[in-house]
Amino acid sequence: MTSFEAKVLSCTKAFDCSITRYSHVSKTLGGLTATLSIILPSCENPPVLYWLSGLTCTDQNFIVKAGAAKYVSINKVAIVCPDTSPRGAGAPREAESWDFGTGAGFYVNATQEGYENYKMHDYVVSELPNVVKEILGDRAQVTNCSIFGHSMGGMGALSLAFSNPGLYKSVSAFSPISNPVLCPWGKKCFRGYLGDDVEKWKLYDPTELVLTKGSMFETILIDQGSADEFLEVQLMPQNFTEACQKVGQKVDLNMAEGYDHSYFFIQTFVEKHISFHAQALYN
Amino acid sequence: MTSFEAKVLSCTKAFDCSITRYSHVSKTLGGLTATLSIILPSCENPPVLYWLSGLTCTDQNFIVKAGAAKYVSINKVAIVCPDTSPRGAGAPREAESWDFGTGAGFYVNATQEGYENYKMHDYVVSELPNVVKEILGDRAQVTNCSIFGHSMGGMGALSLAFSNPGLYKSVSAFSPISNPVLCPWGKKCFRGYLGDDVEKWKLYDPTELVLTKGSMFETILIDQGSADEFLEVQLMPQNFTEACQKVGQKVDLNMAEGYDHSYFFIQTFVEKHISFHAQALYN
Repeated sequence: MTSFEAKVLSCTKAFDCSITRYSHVSKTLGGLTATLSIILPSCENPPVLYWLSGLTCTDQNFIVKAGAAKYVSINKVAIVCPDTSPRGAGAPREAESWDFGTGAGFYVNATQEGYENYKMHDYVVSELPNVVKEILGDRAQVTNCSIFGHSMGGMGALSLAFSNPGLYKSVSAFSPISNPVLCPWGKKCFRGYLGDDVEKWKLYDPTELVLTKGSMFETILIDQGSADEFLEVQLMPQNFTEACQKVGQKVDLNMAEGYDHSYFFIQTFVEKHISFHAQALYN
Repeated sequence: MTSFEAKVLSCTKAFDCSITRYSHVSKTLGGLTATLSIILPSCENPPVLYWLSGLTCTDQNFIVKAGAAKYVSINKVAIVCPDTSPRGAGAPREAESWDFGTGAGFYVNATQEGYENYKMHDYVVSELPNVVKEILGDRAQVTNCSIFGHSMGGMGALSLAFSNPGLYKSVSAFSPISNPVLCPWGKKCFRGYLGDDVEKWKLYDPTELVLTKGSMFETILIDQGSADEFLEVQLMPQNFTEACQKVGQKVDLNMAEGYDHSYFFIQTFVEKHISFHAQALYN
């Protein structure tokens, strides 16, 4: 068994849950130290729900701002939050802007020179479950899992779910970057990490993926604030839902009147999402 | 009508509430700019519940971390969060440590030279309600109000409630600094703001106040984490409850097993506290 040298950074209690932050050495991210946080309910052997955060976030934003512990407790599902990029990779331009590089890993495996550490797809899909397994042992069902996320992390959740058939029981998203090959955030990161060939970008684009993979889930849940400043230019959820309709993938897109892109919006609907995944995980 | 030159700094939506942050010019704080945040439910004319934060906090900590909007909505009570000290006063040693000066106003009216801006007692009791009245007009019952807080703010809530009879319908606290004349945090701030005469300190000490004022509330609600690192040396809630017993003031002290001093503890019990105050405010 590989040791990830996982260390507890902090531990607290909320409702009947422990909330613990860990660091570990990540082989997938080229030996860099990574952080993750886990909300673990007190029940026996809960399934696992992965949360992927958006641009600029760490493993802590959801933990501090989403108010999720109550619903972790009620629904008996552990939530695991990884970071959004490698830290300290020293990659070109990684610290120049908030929407590329550090805090903006985009859940892809970078192929461009200098970005060898940027393997967040493989990190989340392959290494993270093993880290969680090493940390929790038999205290959670690590292989019975689902995934959700926000913005870049909503994109990541949809992208990982469609590109890894059978890995996740269910997928949902808040305000996902739904068609990143067409939006400024996506183009900037995909070009930087993957080069100029748009066909390579499509392997991580939820809208493109559902068109090629077809229907894979009973239903997909998406919440989107109508007052979200990024809705038109960056997020484009209708592109994803139209692609779903074409291939017969059921999707429940809730346009939530007056909500913006913040964690206050996530806090409002997090109960619904956790309950949605619990139904799939306990089925 | 005095104008406080209130300006909206940000506005968002959570559940059916608006969450708005304002700045205004504070006469009480010597003309400095102060900030406050308001969680306003969509119902007609809610009563007002003041939240006082602890050391190092601003008006934003409770807003971001407590997960309170859901219970504001359910209980139909607006929550108003002021800052914890004046900002930019230029007072002696105000920026040297986290437990004195900026972020540590202790809800007193300072009497010492150089601390003329440190009038957080009068600010919260007298000016803040007028600022809220100017901002909300008839959208809230500003004079039908209660108060609660955490740590230094729990002390502030108890202190203000007992030193201003009739002003607040009910009072509760999370992990209050219950007998500040006896603890390091209290001694440091009281000496700095009020001088060496301990009798002056007692005018702001919850335990001393309840002994002199007697029973003033039907019951007082206190939650305290048993794993709180500050419990023994700084908080001493049993001193307050013993004083309450002496004068016949009913107090419900809940020692919550395993919880620490953080907002995760507050998040766990905030529903209970908001509901407690709503009962008093709608009585």
